[in-house]
Amino acid sequence: MTRKNRPNKGLTYAQAGVDIDAGDRTVDRITAHLRRTYGPRVLGRDGAFAGCFRLDYNERLFKRNYKDPVLIACTDGVGTKVLLAVQMGIHDTIGQDCVAMNVNDMIVQGAEPLFFLDYVGVHRVIPEQMEQIVKGVADGCQLAGCALIGGETAEMPDVYKPGDYDLAGFAVGVCELKRVIDGQRVEPGDIIIGLTSSGIHSNGYTLVRAILKHAKLNLDKVYPDLEDTRPLGRVLLEPTRIYARQVVSVLRSYKRKRPIGGMAHITGGGLPGNVNRALHSSVDAKIHKKAWQIPPLFKFLQRQGKVDEQEMFRVFNMGVGYTLIVRPHFTEAIMEKLRKAGEQPFVLGRITRGTGRVVLS
Amino acid sequence: MTRKNRPNKGLTYAQAGVDIDAGDRTVDRITAHLRRTYGPRVLGRDGAFAGCFRLDYNERLFKRNYKDPVLIACTDGVGTKVLLAVQMGIHDTIGQDCVAMNVNDMIVQGAEPLFFLDYVGVHRVIPEQMEQIVKGVADGCQLAGCALIGGETAEMPDVYKPGDYDLAGFAVGVCELKRVIDGQRVEPGDIIIGLTSSGIHSNGYTLVRAILKHAKLNLDKVYPDLEDTRPLGRVLLEPTRIYARQVVSVLRSYKRKRPIGGMAHITGGGLPGNVNRALHSSVDAKIHKKAWQIPPLFKFLQRQGKVDEQEMFRVFNMGVGYTLIVRPHFTEAIMEKLRKAGEQPFVLGRITRGTGRVVLS
Repeated sequence: MTRKNRPNKGLTYAQAGVDIDAGDRTVDRITAHLRRTYGPRVLGRDGAFAGCFRLDYNERLFKRNYKDPVLIACTDGVGTKVLLAVQMGIHDTIGQDCVAMNVNDMIVQGAEPLFFLDYVGVHRVIPEQMEQIVKGVADGCQLAGCALIGGETAEMPDVYKPGDYDLAGFAVGVCELKRVIDGQRVEPGDIIIGLTSSGIHSNGYTLVRAILKHAKLNLDKVYPDLEDTRPLGRVLLEPTRIYARQVVSVLRSYKRKRPIGGMAHITGGGLPGNVNRALHSSVDAKIHKKAWQIPPLFKFLQRQGKVDEQEMFRVFNMGVGYTLIVRPHFTEAIMEKLRKAGEQPFVLGRITRGTGRVVLS
Repeated sequence: MTRKNRPNKGLTYAQAGVDIDAGDRTVDRITAHLRRTYGPRVLGRDGAFAGCFRLDYNERLFKRNYKDPVLIACTDGVGTKVLLAVQMGIHDTIGQDCVAMNVNDMIVQGAEPLFFLDYVGVHRVIPEQMEQIVKGVADGCQLAGCALIGGETAEMPDVYKPGDYDLAGFAVGVCELKRVIDGQRVEPGDIIIGLTSSGIHSNGYTLVRAILKHAKLNLDKVYPDLEDTRPLGRVLLEPTRIYARQVVSVLRSYKRKRPIGGMAHITGGGLPGNVNRALHSSVDAKIHKKAWQIPPLFKFLQRQGKVDEQEMFRVFNMGVGYTLIVRPHFTEAIMEKLRKAGEQPFVLGRITRGTGRVVLS
């Protein structure tokens, strides 16, 4: 049934603002992106109501790998980083941010990512734009080693402004019950390892945009203070790093020993508001601000917005995107494994007796 | 650190429009709602980065119940039904809609719901409003028999208009591989059973709102044509029915036999756009429009909007929220089980040889 030139004068769904055909065209465009994330565990079927994912490649492997599997799931969005993507007209990286925000949260508990689903709320479906968004999600899923088994695009012209959209994601992983990491095993003397962030990641963009406005900054301009050849807007849109493969490979390399007591993904709340989530109530995390170089972007934003340093550390990751709390004896071995996986890990500080707080000094 | 009366004049996150404390107050309010959905399979921990859910109560039970488990996952929102909730100032039922949209999709594949997560994008976090939204989500989870193990509230004042929000959800269930329902076993002669909807459910609200505007309808008015004592707005906000417990109980009652070949959740696209998703390419579904009484609400909206009947059937569920395609020999037994579970099932039509189409007559 064509939806154009309809004979009667009654209301149709298309006139009311929802274009089902544009939705169908979008599905055609994004299917290839979904498929490149599929492994043999995905049970694919066109038109299915839900995505299906086998917990292991086959029954025999599954029984060998899991005695008491725990599913680990989280949901997160990319915050107002989408507004920057819209302003710059660059839509193919925000999907990686969305995957990163979820997958980095999930691996904190010791999980291996299995699959991902995305939700896009949008003013109007523009198939080309939607393809770019989903391409980024699929890129992120490939980086994280998980399958993109579903998603939803909701066209809501009266909720979202023209050109605007919101992007949220959902990730599921699995971990054997005995190996779930919950911070209870963190001990005084443990070492805190930090992994570098690629920039702002996906938290604090409402403050970033306030600073842009306050200091009348130009997204298209190259600022020498940034020590980057790209214009400010591009630097700010740099996608969030995904730590999944690196962290999972370290976890897998210790089959019996459990040298990692806790981990944290540094999101809204910064180091003080996230490393504490990896502690129990009788230890503190002592972090030395001089342990790493704060990237020029954060110093630039702090200066331009005259933002208090404490506020900077509470809102932004300040260059540290992920932390691992490890037994001192294993520190060098774990750092070497991380280096081999492409990271540049550094010692941020150590665990002391305390009350579950993060002490920055 | 208090966020008020800060001494310096630099920008803070709160001034930029994000109130972290309101977020914290919201977490306090919603925790009780999450907890009432928990069963023994939820591994709860405050401040965790992700929700953790054991696949069975214990290792022994897990091995007895699953040989080759398949995870079944989906994501969906509630569309512009949120705008109606906002307009009416009623926020404690839209969460059930959100759970329903996801869980009803998932059970179509034969899954038992395990857990749910919600995502709320909002102009500004109002703890009382957020509690109402999450209360509805928790109600829906209890109806569906799944745990609400996580969620995200994203405050985005520059994306959402004051008072507005968007609500999406994500559900995961499990099904033994051999029992996944994919429509491949549907045969000519099979019977199509329909289950009643509670109203519009959560699709087509953009058209509903266009009709409201076109016909200058009043949400606060009781229209005799609706055959309902409640005002129009309340009738339109009636939450989506959740078919999970009923359908799962029927599926569980057939341990060896597999009398159900396909199922469909009737969402956007109506009967013709959803029952086809339960078919393979060599059968048709013949549905008789006279097999059930179209509820007064649909006739009222059709008349008020002068909407073509075909368009009505393509956009709305027309009173049928869920369908099951069953072997003829089992029809009466399955209908009796559904009746015992509180449903009023009816025969909608039957399967014939064909090309994967739905034929309404």
